[in-house]
Amino acid sequence: MIAGRIAVGLDIGGTKLLAVALDPDGGVVAERKVATPAAGPEFVDALVAAVVEVAGRCPATVGVGIPGMVDGTGVLRSSPHQPGLVGLAIAGSLGARLPGAQVWVGNDATCAAWAEHVGGAGVGIDDLVMVTLGTGIGGGIIAGGRLVEGAHRYAGEIGHMVVDTHGPPCPCGQRGCWERMASGGGLGRLGREWAVAGRAPSIVARAGGDPEAVRGEHVTASAAAGEGEAVALMAEFAWWLALGLASLTNVLDPGVVVIGGGLIAAGEVLMAPARRAFASLVEGHRHRPGLALRAAALGERSGAIGAGLIARRDADGRAEAPRKSPGWPVTVH
Amino acid sequence: MIAGRIAVGLDIGGTKLLAVALDPDGGVVAERKVATPAAGPEFVDALVAAVVEVAGRCPATVGVGIPGMVDGTGVLRSSPHQPGLVGLAIAGSLGARLPGAQVWVGNDATCAAWAEHVGGAGVGIDDLVMVTLGTGIGGGIIAGGRLVEGAHRYAGEIGHMVVDTHGPPCPCGQRGCWERMASGGGLGRLGREWAVAGRAPSIVARAGGDPEAVRGEHVTASAAAGEGEAVALMAEFAWWLALGLASLTNVLDPGVVVIGGGLIAAGEVLMAPARRAFASLVEGHRHRPGLALRAAALGERSGAIGAGLIARRDADGRAEAPRKSPGWPVTVH
Repeated sequence: MIAGRIAVGLDIGGTKLLAVALDPDGGVVAERKVATPAAGPEFVDALVAAVVEVAGRCPATVGVGIPGMVDGTGVLRSSPHQPGLVGLAIAGSLGARLPGAQVWVGNDATCAAWAEHVGGAGVGIDDLVMVTLGTGIGGGIIAGGRLVEGAHRYAGEIGHMVVDTHGPPCPCGQRGCWERMASGGGLGRLGREWAVAGRAPSIVARAGGDPEAVRGEHVTASAAAGEGEAVALMAEFAWWLALGLASLTNVLDPGVVVIGGGLIAAGEVLMAPARRAFASLVEGHRHRPGLALRAAALGERSGAIGAGLIARRDADGRAEAPRKSPGWPVTVH
Repeated sequence: MIAGRIAVGLDIGGTKLLAVALDPDGGVVAERKVATPAAGPEFVDALVAAVVEVAGRCPATVGVGIPGMVDGTGVLRSSPHQPGLVGLAIAGSLGARLPGAQVWVGNDATCAAWAEHVGGAGVGIDDLVMVTLGTGIGGGIIAGGRLVEGAHRYAGEIGHMVVDTHGPPCPCGQRGCWERMASGGGLGRLGREWAVAGRAPSIVARAGGDPEAVRGEHVTASAAAGEGEAVALMAEFAWWLALGLASLTNVLDPGVVVIGGGLIAAGEVLMAPARRAFASLVEGHRHRPGLALRAAALGERSGAIGAGLIARRDADGRAEAPRKSPGWPVTVH
């Protein structure tokens, strides 16, 4: 274990939490994954235990990324997966249990964006949008080399852009939020719609013959195998994905859009049609040289790494990312 | 005339261009409005003449704001109103005619955003979105006290967020772009729809009895007079406006959204229903203390002032705005 300059990053998933210890160069020197407790006291206990275990002692800086809206004081204000944690002062609770540690808590996709910018698919890209496709859609924004955090630290709630006022209802209260159409959950919904309508027999076969059992992975597996209806379905899904990416690009003019989250396991089955649709949907695409959709490079560790890096950045009083060379290794020693 | 530290800002409208000369404190010391020539050589001549006239001589810095997409080299890449100018190297042409002057050229709404941030409705607000409602919708973004310019300097093309894939076609090639629904032009379209459907007799009366002649100002005048159908129409229009404002707020988490452009002459007839709809549409609105929709403070001079201020900022090598006290006077001496 490296003491002193160690930073710990935590990424809180709906079922698992991942802790990583980062050395001064941002390399992952230890990691641990444990179950995420659903309630407050056990939740804080689990975080403290994971921090101490990966760091070997109380570290100087701790960053926590969690889905939902975390305010500037580190209180979780909304949560798509962990309703039992809403209202919890995560930063305060953790700080009280880790004396001397500087604690930062924020949105998980914001953390992933920073990690990809510092050492992943967005190295050298000063204007970047990160989009994570999972059950919902998360986002993080870098503008002019700086993390966009917002007035209340809620920047990046991109999944709730409304793209279709006639679309399906969203738990947030609106209709046609982008994440209803273009997340991993949205792909499963679209797959079930096609399945129930009899448009996707080869996908239904992969779901054991039950149209209602179709999930996103059945669609992507079928498309990867070249089955016609799944390829067509992926084209429709990719159009919805690209629609939101185009709106974000029109608003923010990134140099690169990084796509992360579980759905990118689908690879080019997703990325190729998304790129085609994106080029047709962005205003003045041909006048944006270099604009690209890239798959995230850091995989499932990006949120935890980014949380640790942001915590350290804040402790150091730096607003901009340290410059890393492309290919910066993020490996467990 | 004040020489030396004078900066000139130009705002290029579809029919008129406005030039202002700014003293070192950002006060407007001279201004001039002339017709906008439609073609390249006459256009550049008019800009040079206006600059020299308001500055009294060749100034040190010149900023130009124009609707559309201006790339990082100062070439106009797209223009909603002046197709004859597309492809013109505005910065290069102007620089060649104004030896020694540092020339910046960018989007007009981006300029307005910076002006409102430095000395208008957004003073002291480090995270701000500016939305200009005219024939279309323009935008400018401040994040962490810095102007968001984007990788290709196109940030702020917010009018082309798609909010309704079933909506009316947009000249950009998409359907249901926000500016189709929520600009001044969108209000006129909605008014004509209601008029032709027989839903708005009092508005039609204001348009001389011809439903096809209804424009936005007939709707706002009728609503200001309390005529029921116009009040209802404004509520529908304000919902569309608020829908896009909410998407932008979810993405960027501004502390204040500043609304400018010709349509804000409607005042509370527009702003009051927009505020109500906005509060219901933003995710977690109650967790965003201080979040407000404000009318722009600098009126029709904001684009020209902002262009001059950005040009001077770039010449000074400053990324952040000088701090102005609220109520900073922007008056013609």
